[in-house]
Amino acid sequence: MKYIIANWKMNMDLKQVNTWLNGFKDLIKDEEFKNKVLIAPASPHLYKSSQFCGDLNLECSSQNVSLHEKGAHTGDIGAFEIKDYCNYSIVGHSERKEDKKTVLEKRNICLEHGITPIVCFVNKDDLKEYYVDGALLAWEDPKNISKDGVYREKDSTEIIDTYKYFETELPNVSIIYGGSVNRDNADKLANISNLGGVLIGNASLDPQHFLDIIKIFE
Amino acid sequence: MKYIIANWKMNMDLKQVNTWLNGFKDLIKDEEFKNKVLIAPASPHLYKSSQFCGDLNLECSSQNVSLHEKGAHTGDIGAFEIKDYCNYSIVGHSERKEDKKTVLEKRNICLEHGITPIVCFVNKDDLKEYYVDGALLAWEDPKNISKDGVYREKDSTEIIDTYKYFETELPNVSIIYGGSVNRDNADKLANISNLGGVLIGNASLDPQHFLDIIKIFE
Repeated sequence: MKYIIANWKMNMDLKQVNTWLNGFKDLIKDEEFKNKVLIAPASPHLYKSSQFCGDLNLECSSQNVSLHEKGAHTGDIGAFEIKDYCNYSIVGHSERKEDKKTVLEKRNICLEHGITPIVCFVNKDDLKEYYVDGALLAWEDPKNISKDGVYREKDSTEIIDTYKYFETELPNVSIIYGGSVNRDNADKLANISNLGGVLIGNASLDPQHFLDIIKIFE
Repeated sequence: MKYIIANWKMNMDLKQVNTWLNGFKDLIKDEEFKNKVLIAPASPHLYKSSQFCGDLNLECSSQNVSLHEKGAHTGDIGAFEIKDYCNYSIVGHSERKEDKKTVLEKRNICLEHGITPIVCFVNKDDLKEYYVDGALLAWEDPKNISKDGVYREKDSTEIIDTYKYFETELPNVSIIYGGSVNRDNADKLANISNLGGVLIGNASLDPQHFLDIIKIFE
Protein backbone atom coordinates (compact mmCIF):
# COMPACT_ATOMS: atom_id res chain seq x y z
CA MET A 1 0.00 0.00 0.00
CA LYS A 2 1.29 3.43 -0.97
CA TYR A 3 0.45 6.91 0.29
CA ILE A 4 -0.88 9.46 -2.18
CA ILE A 5 -0.83 12.78 -0.36
CA ALA A 6 -2.25 16.11 -1.49
CA ASN A 7 -0.32 18.90 0.21
CA TRP A 8 -2.45 21.94 -0.56
CA LYS A 9 0.03 24.21 1.19
CA MET A 10 -1.24 27.78 1.54
CA ASN A 11 -3.40 27.94 -1.55
CA MET A 12 -7.09 27.69 -0.79
CA ASP A 13 -9.75 29.66 0.99
CA LEU A 14 -12.81 27.88 2.36
CA LYS A 15 -14.80 28.32 -0.83
CA GLN A 16 -12.00 26.74 -2.87
CA VAL A 17 -11.74 23.90 -0.35
CA ASN A 18 -15.46 23.24 -0.70
CA THR A 19 -15.21 23.35 -4.49
CA TRP A 20 -12.29 20.91 -4.42
CA LEU A 21 -13.99 18.52 -2.01
CA ASN A 22 -17.26 18.45 -3.94
CA GLY A 23 -15.45 18.21 -7.25
CA PHE A 24 -13.38 15.28 -6.03
CA LYS A 25 -16.47 13.58 -4.63
CA ASP A 26 -18.19 13.83 -8.01
CA LEU A 27 -15.14 12.50 -9.80
CA ILE A 28 -14.51 9.44 -7.67
CA LYS A 29 -18.18 8.52 -7.24
CA ASP A 30 -18.12 5.35 -5.15
CA GLU A 31 -14.66 4.29 -6.23
CA GLU A 32 -12.45 2.79 -3.54
CA PHE A 33 -8.69 3.00 -3.64
CA LYS A 34 -6.30 0.29 -2.58
CA ASN A 35 -3.74 2.92 -1.69
CA LYS A 36 -4.12 5.38 1.18
CA VAL A 37 -5.22 8.75 -0.12
CA LEU A 38 -4.63 11.79 2.09
CA ILE A 39 -5.42 15.47 1.82
CA ALA A 40 -3.47 18.02 3.86
CA PRO A 41 -5.37 21.32 4.05
CA ALA A 42 -4.30 24.46 5.89
CA SER A 43 -5.23 24.03 9.54
CA PRO A 44 -8.32 26.30 9.57
CA HIS A 45 -9.84 24.00 6.94
CA LEU A 46 -9.19 20.78 8.89
CA TYR A 47 -12.67 20.73 10.41
CA LYS A 48 -14.47 20.94 7.08
CA SER A 49 -12.03 18.63 5.33
CA SER A 50 -12.14 15.97 8.03
CA GLN A 51 -15.92 15.76 7.81
CA PHE A 52 -15.57 15.13 4.10
CA CYS A 53 -12.77 12.59 4.55
CA GLY A 54 -14.87 10.64 7.00
CA ASP A 55 -17.61 10.28 4.39
CA LEU A 56 -15.27 9.09 1.67
CA ASN A 57 -12.71 6.91 3.40
CA LEU A 58 -9.97 9.39 2.68
CA GLU A 59 -7.57 10.46 5.38
CA CYS A 60 -6.84 13.97 6.52
CA SER A 61 -3.42 15.32 7.49
CA SER A 62 -2.16 18.46 9.14
CA GLN A 63 0.63 20.34 7.36
CA ASN A 64 2.48 21.05 10.56
CA VAL A 65 2.38 20.52 14.31
CA SER A 66 3.88 22.19 17.37
CA LEU A 67 6.92 20.68 19.00
CA HIS A 68 5.41 21.62 22.36
CA GLU A 69 2.99 19.49 24.29
CA LYS A 70 0.52 22.17 25.39
CA GLY A 71 0.24 25.61 26.94
CA ALA A 72 1.42 29.16 26.30
CA HIS A 73 2.35 28.85 22.62
CA THR A 74 0.19 31.41 20.83
CA GLY A 75 -0.35 30.43 17.19
CA ASP A 76 1.04 26.92 17.53
CA ILE A 77 -1.10 23.85 16.89
CA GLY A 78 -0.68 21.02 19.33
CA ALA A 79 -0.74 17.36 18.32
CA PHE A 80 -3.56 16.95 20.85
CA GLU A 81 -5.49 19.70 19.05
CA ILE A 82 -5.22 18.23 15.55
CA LYS A 83 -5.98 14.72 16.80
CA ASP A 84 -9.70 15.50 16.58
CA TYR A 85 -9.42 16.11 12.86
CA CYS A 86 -6.73 13.83 11.51
CA ASN A 87 -4.43 10.88 12.08
CA TYR A 88 -1.47 12.23 10.13
CA SER A 89 0.75 15.29 10.13
CA ILE A 90 3.43 16.42 7.74
CA VAL A 91 6.44 17.45 9.81
CA GLY A 92 9.64 19.21 8.84
CA HIS A 93 8.65 20.20 5.30
CA SER A 94 11.60 22.02 3.73
CA GLU A 95 9.48 25.15 3.29
CA ARG A 96 9.38 25.49 7.07
CA LYS A 97 13.17 25.64 7.33
CA GLU A 98 13.31 23.76 10.63
CA ASP A 99 16.41 22.24 12.14
CA LYS A 100 16.79 18.51 12.67
CA LYS A 101 16.20 18.69 16.41
CA THR A 102 12.86 20.45 15.91
CA VAL A 103 11.75 17.97 13.27
CA LEU A 104 12.60 15.01 15.47
CA GLU A 105 10.73 16.53 18.41
CA LYS A 106 7.70 17.08 16.21
CA ARG A 107 7.95 13.51 14.95
CA ASN A 108 8.04 12.20 18.50
CA ILE A 109 5.16 14.29 19.79
CA CYS A 110 3.02 13.06 16.90
CA LEU A 111 3.78 9.46 17.79
CA GLU A 112 2.97 10.10 21.45
CA HIS A 113 -0.48 11.34 20.41
CA GLY A 114 -1.20 8.54 17.96
CA ILE A 115 -0.64 10.74 14.93
CA THR A 116 1.44 9.26 12.12
CA PRO A 117 4.15 11.79 11.26
CA ILE A 118 5.06 12.17 7.60
CA VAL A 119 8.65 13.18 8.22
CA CYS A 120 10.12 15.19 5.36
CA PHE A 121 13.84 15.24 4.69
CA VAL A 122 15.96 16.58 1.85
CA ASN A 123 19.42 15.13 2.47
CA LYS A 124 19.28 11.43 1.63
CA ASP A 125 22.00 10.65 4.14
CA ASP A 126 19.69 11.75 6.96
CA LEU A 127 17.38 8.83 6.24
CA LYS A 128 18.24 6.67 9.22
CA GLU A 129 18.25 9.56 11.63
CA TYR A 130 14.66 10.48 10.79
CA TYR A 131 13.33 6.96 10.71
CA VAL A 132 11.61 5.38 13.64
CA ASP A 133 8.98 2.68 13.82
CA GLY A 134 5.54 4.20 13.24
CA ALA A 135 6.74 7.20 11.25
CA LEU A 136 6.48 7.67 7.50
CA LEU A 137 9.40 9.19 5.66
CA ALA A 138 9.05 11.52 2.69
CA TRP A 139 12.12 12.41 0.69
CA GLU A 140 11.93 15.88 -0.79
CA ASP A 141 14.14 15.49 -3.83
CA PRO A 142 16.35 18.61 -3.77
CA LYS A 143 16.73 18.46 -7.55
CA ASN A 144 12.98 18.41 -8.10
CA ILE A 145 11.50 20.72 -5.53
CA SER A 146 9.25 22.95 -7.59
CA LYS A 147 9.51 26.67 -7.27
CA ASP A 148 6.11 28.36 -7.19
CA GLY A 149 4.54 25.69 -9.35
CA VAL A 150 7.18 25.71 -12.06
CA TYR A 151 8.11 22.10 -12.67
CA ARG A 152 11.63 21.16 -13.62
CA GLU A 153 12.72 18.31 -15.84
CA LYS A 154 12.79 15.04 -13.94
CA ASP A 155 15.85 12.88 -13.92
CA SER A 156 14.33 9.52 -13.09
CA THR A 157 17.68 7.72 -13.23
CA GLU A 158 18.90 9.73 -10.28
CA ILE A 159 15.65 9.08 -8.43
CA ILE A 160 15.97 5.34 -9.07
CA ASP A 161 19.57 5.40 -7.82
CA THR A 162 18.55 7.18 -4.64
CA TYR A 163 15.82 4.64 -3.98
CA LYS A 164 18.39 1.87 -4.47
CA TYR A 165 20.48 3.60 -1.83
CA PHE A 166 17.43 3.81 0.48
CA GLU A 167 16.84 0.07 -0.05
CA THR A 168 20.40 -0.67 1.04
CA GLU A 169 20.23 1.62 4.04
CA LEU A 170 16.75 0.72 5.23
CA PRO A 171 15.60 -2.52 3.62
CA ASN A 172 11.84 -3.10 3.61
CA VAL A 173 11.04 0.50 4.45
CA SER A 174 9.14 2.41 1.78
CA ILE A 175 9.95 6.09 1.34
CA ILE A 176 7.43 8.59 -0.01
CA TYR A 177 8.67 10.80 -2.83
CA GLY A 178 8.13 14.54 -3.01
CA GLY A 179 9.26 16.90 -5.75
CA SER A 180 7.09 18.30 -8.51
CA VAL A 181 5.04 15.13 -8.82
CA ASN A 182 2.45 15.32 -11.59
CA ARG A 183 0.50 13.01 -13.90
CA ASP A 184 3.29 13.09 -16.48
CA ASN A 185 6.05 11.81 -14.22
CA ALA A 186 3.96 9.65 -11.85
CA ASP A 187 4.21 6.49 -13.95
CA LYS A 188 8.01 6.43 -13.68
CA LEU A 189 7.77 6.89 -9.93
CA ALA A 190 5.10 4.20 -9.59
CA ASN A 191 7.56 1.67 -10.99
CA ILE A 192 10.07 2.12 -8.17
CA SER A 193 9.36 -0.77 -5.82
CA ASN A 194 10.40 0.77 -2.50
CA LEU A 195 8.83 4.14 -3.28
CA GLY A 196 6.11 4.44 -0.66
CA GLY A 197 3.91 6.93 -2.44
CA VAL A 198 3.97 10.58 -3.38
CA LEU A 199 3.66 13.93 -1.65
CA ILE A 200 2.03 16.18 -4.22
CA GLY A 201 2.06 19.96 -4.12
CA ASN A 202 0.71 22.06 -6.97
CA ALA A 203 -0.73 19.19 -8.98
CA SER A 204 -2.97 18.29 -6.06
CA LEU A 205 -4.82 21.60 -6.23
CA ASP A 206 -6.84 20.32 -9.16
CA PRO A 207 -8.99 17.33 -8.11
CA GLN A 208 -8.87 15.79 -11.59
CA HIS A 209 -5.08 16.03 -11.71
CA PHE A 210 -4.85 14.55 -8.22
CA LEU A 211 -7.17 11.70 -9.22
CA ASP A 212 -5.10 11.01 -12.33
CA ILE A 213 -2.03 10.52 -10.13
CA ILE A 214 -3.96 8.34 -7.70
CA LYS A 215 -5.04 6.10 -10.58
CA ILE A 216 -1.51 5.75 -11.92
CA PHE A 217 -0.50 4.31 -8.55
CA GLU A 218 -3.50 1.94 -8.23
CA MET B 1 -15.56 50.57 23.28
CA LYS B 2 -12.88 48.21 24.56
CA TYR B 3 -11.67 44.83 23.34
CA ILE B 4 -11.89 41.86 25.68
CA ILE B 5 -9.92 39.08 24.03
CA ALA B 6 -9.64 35.45 25.08
CA ASN B 7 -6.34 34.07 23.78
CA TRP B 8 -6.74 30.35 24.37
CA LYS B 9 -3.24 29.70 23.09
CA MET B 10 -2.48 25.99 22.70
CA ASN B 11 -4.69 24.66 25.43
CA MET B 12 -7.86 23.05 24.13
CA ASP B 13 -8.87 20.09 22.04
CA LEU B 14 -12.16 20.15 20.15
CA LYS B 15 -14.12 18.65 23.04
CA GLN B 16 -12.84 21.33 25.39
CA VAL B 17 -13.66 24.01 22.83
CA ASN B 18 -17.21 22.71 22.60
CA THR B 19 -17.52 22.58 26.37
CA TRP B 20 -16.22 26.15 26.65
CA LEU B 21 -18.52 27.47 23.93
CA ASN B 22 -21.62 25.81 25.32
CA GLY B 23 -20.70 26.79 28.86
CA PHE B 24 -20.23 30.41 27.87
CA LYS B 25 -23.49 30.40 25.93
CA ASP B 26 -25.33 29.18 29.02
CA LEU B 27 -23.67 31.77 31.21
CA ILE B 28 -24.36 34.82 29.09
CA LYS B 29 -27.87 33.81 28.05
CA ASP B 30 -29.11 36.68 25.88
CA GLU B 31 -26.83 39.28 27.41
CA GLU B 32 -25.30 41.79 25.03
CA PHE B 33 -22.00 43.49 25.69
CA LYS B 34 -21.16 47.07 24.90
CA ASN B 35 -17.52 46.12 24.50
CA LYS B 36 -16.19 43.91 21.70
CA VAL B 37 -15.65 40.38 22.98
CA LEU B 38 -13.29 38.15 20.99
CA ILE B 39 -12.16 34.56 21.28
CA ALA B 40 -8.92 33.41 19.67
CA PRO B 41 -8.86 29.61 19.34
CA ALA B 42 -6.09 27.51 17.82
CA SER B 43 -6.55 27.55 14.04
CA PRO B 44 -8.04 24.05 13.64
CA HIS B 45 -10.88 25.18 15.92
CA LEU B 46 -11.65 28.36 13.96
CA TYR B 47 -14.43 26.74 11.95
CA LYS B 48 -16.35 25.51 14.97
CA SER B 49 -15.68 28.67 16.97
CA SER B 50 -16.70 31.02 14.18
CA GLN B 51 -20.06 29.30 13.82
CA PHE B 52 -20.65 29.87 17.52
CA CYS B 53 -19.47 33.47 17.38
CA GLY B 54 -21.87 34.22 14.57
CA ASP B 55 -24.78 33.06 16.71
CA LEU B 56 -23.78 35.14 19.71
CA ASN B 57 -22.43 38.39 18.30
CA LEU B 58 -18.96 37.57 19.52
CA GLU B 59 -15.95 37.96 17.24
CA CYS B 60 -13.42 35.34 16.38
CA SER B 61 -9.68 35.93 15.99
CA SER B 62 -6.79 33.91 14.67
CA GLN B 63 -3.73 33.60 16.92
CA ASN B 64 -1.31 34.04 14.06
CA VAL B 65 -1.11 34.60 10.34
CA SER B 66 1.47 34.03 7.61
CA LEU B 67 3.56 36.93 6.39
CA HIS B 68 3.24 35.50 2.87
CA GLU B 69 0.39 36.21 0.52
CA LYS B 70 -0.19 32.70 -0.82
CA GLY B 71 1.52 29.64 -2.26
CA ALA B 72 4.19 27.16 -1.30
CA HIS B 73 4.30 27.71 2.45
CA THR B 74 3.46 24.35 4.01
CA GLY B 75 1.96 24.79 7.47
CA ASP B 76 1.45 28.54 7.21
CA ILE B 77 -2.01 30.08 7.40
CA GLY B 78 -2.71 32.85 4.94
CA ALA B 79 -4.75 35.93 5.77
CA PHE B 80 -6.97 34.98 2.83
CA GLU B 81 -7.52 31.56 4.44
CA ILE B 82 -8.54 32.83 7.88
CA LYS B 83 -10.77 35.54 6.39
CA ASP B 84 -13.60 33.00 6.07
CA TYR B 85 -13.59 32.45 9.81
CA CYS B 86 -12.64 35.71 11.46
CA ASN B 87 -12.08 39.44 11.12
CA TYR B 88 -9.16 39.68 13.55
CA SER B 89 -5.75 38.14 14.01
CA ILE B 90 -3.25 38.42 16.81
CA VAL B 91 0.15 39.11 15.26
CA GLY B 92 3.60 39.16 16.79
CA HIS B 93 2.73 37.66 20.15
CA SER B 94 5.92 37.50 22.22
CA GLU B 95 5.61 33.71 22.48
CA ARG B 96 6.25 33.52 18.73
CA LYS B 97 9.61 35.30 19.05
CA GLU B 98 9.28 37.13 15.74
CA ASP B 99 11.40 40.06 14.66
CA LYS B 100 9.93 43.49 14.03
CA LYS B 101 10.08 43.20 10.25
CA THR B 102 8.04 39.98 10.31
CA VAL B 103 5.46 41.47 12.66
CA LEU B 104 5.03 44.55 10.49
CA GLU B 105 4.64 42.40 7.37
CA LYS B 106 1.99 40.33 9.13
CA ARG B 107 0.24 43.49 10.26
CA ASN B 108 0.19 44.80 6.70
CA ILE B 109 -1.03 41.61 5.08
CA CYS B 110 -3.91 41.48 7.56
CA LEU B 111 -4.92 45.01 6.64
CA GLU B 112 -4.76 44.21 2.94
CA HIS B 113 -7.22 41.37 3.50
CA GLY B 114 -9.61 43.33 5.70
CA ILE B 115 -8.49 41.59 8.87
CA THR B 116 -7.88 43.77 11.90
CA PRO B 117 -4.44 42.91 13.26
CA ILE B 118 -4.00 42.89 17.02
CA VAL B 119 -0.35 43.84 16.99
CA CYS B 120 1.48 42.73 20.12
CA PHE B 121 4.57 44.53 21.34
CA VAL B 122 6.63 44.31 24.52
CA ASN B 123 8.95 47.31 24.36
CA LYS B 124 6.85 50.41 25.02
CA ASP B 125 9.16 52.54 22.92
CA ASP B 126 8.16 50.55 19.83
CA LEU B 127 4.62 51.89 20.08
CA LYS B 128 4.72 54.31 17.18
CA GLU B 129 6.53 51.91 14.90
CA TYR B 130 3.82 49.28 15.24
CA TYR B 131 0.92 51.67 14.98
CA VAL B 132 -0.92 52.28 11.75
CA ASP B 133 -4.48 53.31 11.07
CA GLY B 134 -6.75 50.25 11.20
CA ALA B 135 -4.53 48.18 13.48
CA LEU B 136 -5.08 47.49 17.15
CA LEU B 137 -2.09 47.56 19.47
CA ALA B 138 -1.66 45.25 22.44
CA TRP B 139 1.09 45.93 24.93
CA GLU B 140 2.45 42.78 26.50
CA ASP B 141 3.67 44.11 29.82
CA PRO B 142 7.13 42.52 30.23
CA LYS B 143 6.81 42.69 34.02
CA ASN B 144 3.53 40.84 34.00
CA ILE B 145 3.79 38.19 31.31
CA SER B 146 2.70 35.06 33.12
CA LYS B 147 4.83 31.98 32.99
CA ASP B 148 2.78 28.83 32.48
CA GLY B 149 -0.21 30.27 34.26
CA VAL B 150 1.65 31.46 37.34
CA TYR B 151 0.54 35.02 37.92
CA ARG B 152 2.93 37.57 39.33
CA GLU B 153 2.09 40.49 41.57
CA LYS B 154 0.77 43.44 39.58
CA ASP B 155 2.29 46.83 39.93
CA SER B 156 -0.56 49.00 38.74
CA THR B 157 1.39 52.25 39.32
CA GLU B 158 3.88 51.22 36.65
CA ILE B 159 1.06 50.22 34.31
CA ILE B 160 -0.63 53.60 34.84
CA ASP B 161 2.66 55.39 34.16
CA THR B 162 3.16 53.47 30.93
CA TYR B 163 -0.34 54.34 29.75
CA LYS B 164 0.40 58.02 30.53
CA TYR B 165 3.44 57.65 28.29
CA PHE B 166 1.30 56.03 25.56
CA GLU B 167 -1.16 58.94 25.84
CA THR B 168 1.66 61.42 25.27
CA GLU B 169 3.11 59.48 22.38
CA LEU B 170 -0.15 58.54 20.65
CA PRO B 171 -2.98 60.73 21.92
CA ASN B 172 -6.48 59.34 21.35
CA VAL B 173 -5.24 55.84 20.57
CA SER B 174 -6.28 53.13 22.99
CA ILE B 175 -3.83 50.35 23.70
CA ILE B 176 -4.94 46.87 24.74
CA TYR B 177 -3.19 45.46 27.80
CA GLY B 178 -1.80 41.95 28.08
CA GLY B 179 -0.06 40.38 31.05
CA SER B 180 -1.62 37.95 33.50
CA VAL B 181 -5.00 39.64 33.38
CA ASN B 182 -7.54 38.08 35.71
CA ARG B 183 -10.71 39.00 37.62
CA ASP B 184 -8.67 40.24 40.59
CA ASN B 185 -6.62 42.82 38.72
CA ALA B 186 -9.11 43.72 35.97
CA ASP B 187 -10.81 46.51 37.97
CA LYS B 188 -7.57 48.48 38.26
CA LEU B 189 -6.97 48.10 34.52
CA ALA B 190 -10.56 49.10 33.69
CA ASN B 191 -9.94 52.48 35.33
CA ILE B 192 -7.15 53.46 32.95
CA SER B 193 -8.84 55.70 30.39
CA ASN B 194 -6.68 55.02 27.34
CA LEU B 195 -6.45 51.29 28.00
CA GLY B 196 -8.23 49.77 25.04
CA GLY B 197 -9.11 46.45 26.55
CA VAL B 198 -7.38 43.27 27.64
CA LEU B 199 -5.71 40.30 26.03
CA ILE B 200 -6.37 37.43 28.41
CA GLY B 201 -4.44 34.18 28.48
CA ASN B 202 -4.96 31.57 31.16
CA ALA B 203 -7.93 33.25 32.83
CA SER B 204 -9.84 33.02 29.56
CA LEU B 205 -9.79 29.23 29.57
CA ASP B 206 -12.60 29.21 32.13
CA PRO B 207 -15.76 30.75 30.64
CA GLN B 208 -16.96 32.01 34.04
CA HIS B 209 -13.62 33.68 34.74
CA PHE B 210 -13.64 35.24 31.27
CA LEU B 211 -17.20 36.49 31.78
CA ASP B 212 -16.25 38.00 35.14
CA ILE B 213 -13.55 40.04 33.41
CA ILE B 214 -15.92 41.05 30.61
CA LYS B 215 -18.38 42.35 33.21
CA ILE B 216 -15.74 44.37 35.05
CA PHE B 217 -15.11 46.25 31.81
CA GLU B 218 -18.80 46.81 30.95
